[in-house]
Amino acid sequence: MKNFEFINPVKLLFGDGQIAKIFNEIPTNSKVLMTYGGGSIRKNGVYDQVIKALEGFDVVEFGGIEANPDYSTLIKAVKICKENKIDYILAVGGGSIIDGSKFIAAAAKFDGDAWDLIVKQLPIEDALPLASVLTLPATASEMNSGGVISRRETKEKYPFGSPLLFPKFSVLDPTVIYSLPKKQIMNGIVDTYIHIVEQYLTTTDHYMVTDRLAEGVLKNLIELSSTLMADGTPDYDTCANYMLTATMGLNGWTSMGATADWATHMIGHELTALAGLDHGLTLAIVYPATMKVMRKEKHAKILQYAERVWNITEGSEDERIDAVIAKTEEFFIQVGMKVRLSDHAVGQDVIDTIVERFEERNQNLGEGGIVTPAHVRMILEDRL
Amino acid sequence: MKNFEFINPVKLLFGDGQIAKIFNEIPTNSKVLMTYGGGSIRKNGVYDQVIKALEGFDVVEFGGIEANPDYSTLIKAVKICKENKIDYILAVGGGSIIDGSKFIAAAAKFDGDAWDLIVKQLPIEDALPLASVLTLPATASEMNSGGVISRRETKEKYPFGSPLLFPKFSVLDPTVIYSLPKKQIMNGIVDTYIHIVEQYLTTTDHYMVTDRLAEGVLKNLIELSSTLMADGTPDYDTCANYMLTATMGLNGWTSMGATADWATHMIGHELTALAGLDHGLTLAIVYPATMKVMRKEKHAKILQYAERVWNITEGSEDERIDAVIAKTEEFFIQVGMKVRLSDHAVGQDVIDTIVERFEERNQNLGEGGIVTPAHVRMILEDRL
Repeated sequence: MKNFEFINPVKLLFGDGQIAKIFNEIPTNSKVLMTYGGGSIRKNGVYDQVIKALEGFDVVEFGGIEANPDYSTLIKAVKICKENKIDYILAVGGGSIIDGSKFIAAAAKFDGDAWDLIVKQLPIEDALPLASVLTLPATASEMNSGGVISRRETKEKYPFGSPLLFPKFSVLDPTVIYSLPKKQIMNGIVDTYIHIVEQYLTTTDHYMVTDRLAEGVLKNLIELSSTLMADGTPDYDTCANYMLTATMGLNGWTSMGATADWATHMIGHELTALAGLDHGLTLAIVYPATMKVMRKEKHAKILQYAERVWNITEGSEDERIDAVIAKTEEFFIQVGMKVRLSDHAVGQDVIDTIVERFEERNQNLGEGGIVTPAHVRMILEDRL
Repeated sequence: MKNFEFINPVKLLFGDGQIAKIFNEIPTNSKVLMTYGGGSIRKNGVYDQVIKALEGFDVVEFGGIEANPDYSTLIKAVKICKENKIDYILAVGGGSIIDGSKFIAAAAKFDGDAWDLIVKQLPIEDALPLASVLTLPATASEMNSGGVISRRETKEKYPFGSPLLFPKFSVLDPTVIYSLPKKQIMNGIVDTYIHIVEQYLTTTDHYMVTDRLAEGVLKNLIELSSTLMADGTPDYDTCANYMLTATMGLNGWTSMGATADWATHMIGHELTALAGLDHGLTLAIVYPATMKVMRKEKHAKILQYAERVWNITEGSEDERIDAVIAKTEEFFIQVGMKVRLSDHAVGQDVIDTIVERFEERNQNLGEGGIVTPAHVRMILEDRL
């Protein structure tokens, strides 16, 4: 096991009716920027509950943050923070809103060109305190200190992060799932699944603790997915277990002292930036090929994954690996994904651009930089 | 799933050589009380490493805290804190030292009779900041906000806790395990195992997330125990995985939204207070009977435990339950425990006193208070 430092100070307020507790968690007399997206929170009652919980605070609203939050949108909120001397941000939404709000929190305390925090990865030395009310389980942004933002102008999408960007608290009310479109649940299931395998399906250097955690999360996702994706509204316990499972997908618990991959995410970000595909969808498309192309390097761990997560124990090692790659792809299809680039009118030109970008940046991916731009080409061409 | 609040802000510094990082974690100019036990840290090199890491700080030492830390010892340290205006406590040791230091941290900021914090459970409203260097994996005190202290004078032992008592940071260096006596490793394995089953082997109300976490910890303990208990020094990865597993046994991760039992711990505390048995040993003695006596109430969860942790799937439900109770007891014996009260010269008189104590306090135990004093009698008499 590698040496590591771990901290995750996020307070979770979990359960039906917890939104009302916001009032006691935000310091009195705070001037609050309430951020949200396209307005679904007005339909499902969350907006009203949050506004009620914020009675007595001076609140400025900033709606309209889009999926894959855009720099040009967020920078408007940064201006509002500076002009209005905002001292607390409450993000009400899914991963895009929370990620975007983390950028706003950092940029509001930064004097230079805020895009440099992203593209030059300048150290984030100060940030407004922020908290979240989660409305869409998927990214675990509600319990981590990172985010991803896009710049459509230049078709770019990059991750960023800082320990200063952990939410002070996050409200996880499972009833928000009742009104989610199935497509968003589908994306969230796959996003969480890939978060875990990116941290798990690497090497077998004795990470017993994180391995068991990761396998537990994957098994829960598989077990929960059919109920979540069935017609009609899922029951409370299914929603609650799914919400907590999604949060565990990327809250740091499964990465303590372990190696991590993240090649699929980096390739997926490029697919979103260049072709506009949903984040979860890009992962479902790419991951089966990541397993296939890197099967030699990931050999031992794929076998462990096959046995412990999918109970595949029959056949030769190669047969078991083939079987579990097929099983993984089949799972994404069963959840509802169309897992080929051709299903989404993405062709060779996009692949060429992506590979060129990694070549230009001289950027290898994956655990120990084992995924070269040539591998990226093989991975994407496998998915045509 | 029940509603819950969760927070665990402890920073872990994990790995070989991490003790040196203490210097950067404690605020400059702090006056530090360094607490420790009977002197094993002088033999294994930890004392020297800590002293070196504290160079530049004003340090007062307080050694001699015993296993099952005693009120009369700790109150001397409280006096030292007040007289010397101590503003940071660094506990160097196992659960007893860290638990005792949590009491010192709270009592040093309390003006009344500090025993009332324990016996009357007065709210802890202020505490000195504290941190730990763990030398004995077992209690997870390094990553939680509770403790247990004893008063030999009156043969009492009680738990206490407050969010103010989370360590600011804890150093987990797996190499400290190299020099541990096997008896202490044995106690730690069983302590961790019982921590988990106290949080897990209760009801089956759909706690999918915490169930998988708990089952993972139990399987790791079973897998690690033979290497840990074999003759000679265990390898680094075994020690590292065990240390992290023990911390996960009681850091709150496995109790989110789940029901908890703790009857075995409460009965075990009485056995330690009255008969002086080691904490881990009391748990190994009591737990098989807790399963046996409460088998009807825990029916469904025992079956889940049998299947998922011990792969017991053959036979009728009753046969599987019998088999897994036997298997659990056998595991404690294999680890090295003598699991009968008669093995330790504890007889009916101690049982009578324990039952009387619970009767006098009108105290039911277990999930939902299902374990009555009459059940406690059945449990203990089964273990004669």
